[in-house]
Amino acid sequence: MTKPAFAQATRASPDESLVEALVAILGAEGVVADSAGVERVTRTCIPFRTQPSVVAYPSSVEQLQALVRLAAQRGVPLWPVSTGKNWGYGENTAVYDGGVTVVLERMNRICHVDEQLGYAVIEPGVTYKQFNDHLKQTGSRFWADTAGTTPLASVLGNALDKGRGMTPMADHFGALCGMDVVLPDGGLLETGGGPAGHNAVRHTYKWGLGPYLDGLFVQSNLGIVVKAGIWLMPAPEAFDFAAFEYTAAPDRLGPFIDDLRELVMARAIRSHPHLANDFAMMCILSQYPTDMLDGRRHLSDDAAARWVKQHGVARWTFGCGLYGSREEVRYQKRMIRKVLGRYGTVQFIGAAVRDDWVGAAVRVAAPLVNRMLGKSPEFAKLMLPAINLFRGIPTDHFVRQAYFKSHPEKPERDIDPARDGCGLVWIGPVVPFTSEHVMNCLTLTQRIFDAHEFDFFVEVIVESSRSVIVLVGVFYDRDSEAEAERVRAWYNEARDAYTENGYPPYRATSMSMASAMDANPVARQLLATLKNAVDPANVLAPGRYGTPAWQHPDPPSP
Amino acid sequence: MTKPAFAQATRASPDESLVEALVAILGAEGVVADSAGVERVTRTCIPFRTQPSVVAYPSSVEQLQALVRLAAQRGVPLWPVSTGKNWGYGENTAVYDGGVTVVLERMNRICHVDEQLGYAVIEPGVTYKQFNDHLKQTGSRFWADTAGTTPLASVLGNALDKGRGMTPMADHFGALCGMDVVLPDGGLLETGGGPAGHNAVRHTYKWGLGPYLDGLFVQSNLGIVVKAGIWLMPAPEAFDFAAFEYTAAPDRLGPFIDDLRELVMARAIRSHPHLANDFAMMCILSQYPTDMLDGRRHLSDDAAARWVKQHGVARWTFGCGLYGSREEVRYQKRMIRKVLGRYGTVQFIGAAVRDDWVGAAVRVAAPLVNRMLGKSPEFAKLMLPAINLFRGIPTDHFVRQAYFKSHPEKPERDIDPARDGCGLVWIGPVVPFTSEHVMNCLTLTQRIFDAHEFDFFVEVIVESSRSVIVLVGVFYDRDSEAEAERVRAWYNEARDAYTENGYPPYRATSMSMASAMDANPVARQLLATLKNAVDPANVLAPGRYGTPAWQHPDPPSP
Repeated sequence: MTKPAFAQATRASPDESLVEALVAILGAEGVVADSAGVERVTRTCIPFRTQPSVVAYPSSVEQLQALVRLAAQRGVPLWPVSTGKNWGYGENTAVYDGGVTVVLERMNRICHVDEQLGYAVIEPGVTYKQFNDHLKQTGSRFWADTAGTTPLASVLGNALDKGRGMTPMADHFGALCGMDVVLPDGGLLETGGGPAGHNAVRHTYKWGLGPYLDGLFVQSNLGIVVKAGIWLMPAPEAFDFAAFEYTAAPDRLGPFIDDLRELVMARAIRSHPHLANDFAMMCILSQYPTDMLDGRRHLSDDAAARWVKQHGVARWTFGCGLYGSREEVRYQKRMIRKVLGRYGTVQFIGAAVRDDWVGAAVRVAAPLVNRMLGKSPEFAKLMLPAINLFRGIPTDHFVRQAYFKSHPEKPERDIDPARDGCGLVWIGPVVPFTSEHVMNCLTLTQRIFDAHEFDFFVEVIVESSRSVIVLVGVFYDRDSEAEAERVRAWYNEARDAYTENGYPPYRATSMSMASAMDANPVARQLLATLKNAVDPANVLAPGRYGTPAWQHPDPPSP
Repeated sequence: MTKPAFAQATRASPDESLVEALVAILGAEGVVADSAGVERVTRTCIPFRTQPSVVAYPSSVEQLQALVRLAAQRGVPLWPVSTGKNWGYGENTAVYDGGVTVVLERMNRICHVDEQLGYAVIEPGVTYKQFNDHLKQTGSRFWADTAGTTPLASVLGNALDKGRGMTPMADHFGALCGMDVVLPDGGLLETGGGPAGHNAVRHTYKWGLGPYLDGLFVQSNLGIVVKAGIWLMPAPEAFDFAAFEYTAAPDRLGPFIDDLRELVMARAIRSHPHLANDFAMMCILSQYPTDMLDGRRHLSDDAAARWVKQHGVARWTFGCGLYGSREEVRYQKRMIRKVLGRYGTVQFIGAAVRDDWVGAAVRVAAPLVNRMLGKSPEFAKLMLPAINLFRGIPTDHFVRQAYFKSHPEKPERDIDPARDGCGLVWIGPVVPFTSEHVMNCLTLTQRIFDAHEFDFFVEVIVESSRSVIVLVGVFYDRDSEAEAERVRAWYNEARDAYTENGYPPYRATSMSMASAMDANPVARQLLATLKNAVDPANVLAPGRYGTPAWQHPDPPSP
């Protein structure tokens, strides 16, 4: 079942009558059916490629409902995506060739922002940038969270794939409340169980009446979410930002992990930092030092150490936001300084984002301090985007890392790694937040990177006080099928090892979905039963997250 | 379809071979089939009565699986309850006569308490008292939440019906993470999507891999939860308790509601107080003053005012816990004093639960202060149980209110309102946390109480910063069919009015389940489709929360 990395030749020509029917529903501007167009919008960073026959862009719920009814009637599968910017997870890539990929980017209304109760109601095409700009322009007293990815990613798309951010509202799916969902029969479900059409609490009370159904539509294919409520946080009275560098001996990393958990448990850390290893920091600060490879496929420990030292990067680095009343931020500062001070250096530099003379002074001083500390100038450029992420302000500063190995330099604007051929794939096992489990996961991950001769990239993401996500990834040359094959082998071994150790990935990619539920046969069977009941023709994103595969009417030629 | 209130005569004699089969699975001690026994354990407070043929008490997952398979095979419906102590919502009462009621109280193991990560894994028979005692006896650093109901209620049963508590962990369903569920085919599902049998994060990471399935098993009949993880909170560094009495003019209640929301939004109130009206307080402090009725069915405004004054009860009262570091509690105190001080009196009396001389002094002084403030001695008895509720310590002090009208006095121990014939029914619409909606809900509720000649009992429960639950209830004479009929009429009108106004009840009762989803036909149809797919014989709690009704083979005689 392994696909060639660039299966452009496999694209099935669309049935002319299908295209006509789509145009009748969506208008000509809502249908892309020419080979070049389809190829362009379905490029991907992962080492797996499929192409649909047609790409469709509905701009309303009614259009989408008509599309779903058409698909069921003609037996054509639909692969819905919001904006398809989940670079390194699969973007617009269906798990099969052919069919219609449905991009929801034109359904991009911000329907409502409730300034009393702190929530918004948005459509799947709304991007982080659009949402954040809207809140700022309307003078909202609320902050939205953002992901570390491109500002052009979909807020709902990220939430529905369990993506995460950095502020106290980092749990994006957890922040959703109340959905409109187009079901496979074309019907429109309003979740929450209350009176449809006039349920006053559908976006304020999560669990509703009867079973909680919102959960059925996350990492799923039982319906297409066309609108959802999302909770916001009030801008805090006080804000600060702590920048931490781990300078202790490597053997103290275990105790550090346990102490970090206790800070989160005690709510001294309310944000969701990413503890990045040196290589992960270097991807942002630098380009890959191909000249240091010495004929190897990945850097030797010695070369990596020399390279890292050039930029003054610590073994582990993270930043975190501080939020709340003045008293609360004072408490957070006291605890962060006390506990993290045992393991490295802590600097409180939140003032850098202030619009007053203090902010200006910090912005001037930071590069000088950095230079004294032996850090490269790139460090100073990180500061504002990093702090702003913890205030929910999106940036593409970090996602540019996708260009770190495939391109001579990172572009300053118009970032699109899929379009630009960057090779990149992520896997993020969820791990109990204890030193024992985290160290075990790091050790086995390092072993797998070494065995497959890739450089060890890892961010330990604080999911909650109980779990972390050990996000690891590989950058590779997407033009080489041999490299793609190496990446797939690395991914499969990593995934198997995580599963074996009890650390399920928090997210699958288009290339790993078919077997996503294999380790839990009862859940897999239950999902198949539910899927068959609500989508008997299996036309809605067949094969997502381990559900029954699409039985392709025209198997692609090899 | 209206049932007589005491339909004892309708109990169908059990099929002898069914009883034999049950005894073969559960042993004789696990089966109650005699009329008196069945009648006794299925008594209810609500004005609706059904009786099963048999009551079954499995003590293991294997027994329960065998029971489920037997039920499917013989076409006998099972009505599972945890401990059946949800007094006023339906207790052990199925929505139909006959069948087997399955009480899970013997499955009562506390399987694990994780002192690093702050969660426990428990079975449905575990009670609040058992759980709390266990944590205290083992010297746990964690607190569990409790409900205001009896200490003998099931922790999981309450959570699975979306019950609530008072501490920051008040959202009982929200605190569940990772379930074992017996499915209608007898299979055992482990939720979370990760590797079954060795998923290290199933109780630490809520959303799992693939669709979030835990939500399918709340207020539902798609499976029987036999084990679940439940999150705990670390005992805070500092704790205090604020007692508030509203003394401002009635027309300032709206602004007060909005200010209360802002306190919650700013996390100055982290607990989930119940704002009780004077009548609700009187139910706890006193017995019903039948002698003041003057031939009416409920108290006149004048009589109620005199009665309330005797005890020095304010128009509205609540208590709330303060939690966190010293700095955080200082902030909470500052804000609570500043904001609530505008509307009434605030006393910080959390020290009363301390084991030192400060605690002793407060305990001695409180009754004296109360007397000076014109309060009855009963007030002082409330103090410790009330504060302890906000530390997660269960008490039956408040649930004794069930005896307030039906009995001459409240029992001191062995509280069981269903067994003792107390008439009692609750309805709790969820309402947006704004003055406009809360005042609207209170006004329409008052009108319905007046029209049906019941005394207005209400507690405004802070669900979150976005919603409140306006919990209302009626105490009545359960021996009178005429009274029961009055209560049903009140309930139905209240429910219709709430639904019409967009305020769905957070919970249904056994007498209201059949139509629970009528206002949301698409959700109702989707649930029916899911139910039919996983339970084609419809033997698992048929008719729960608006799902298709049981087609009774032997209709009860009228």
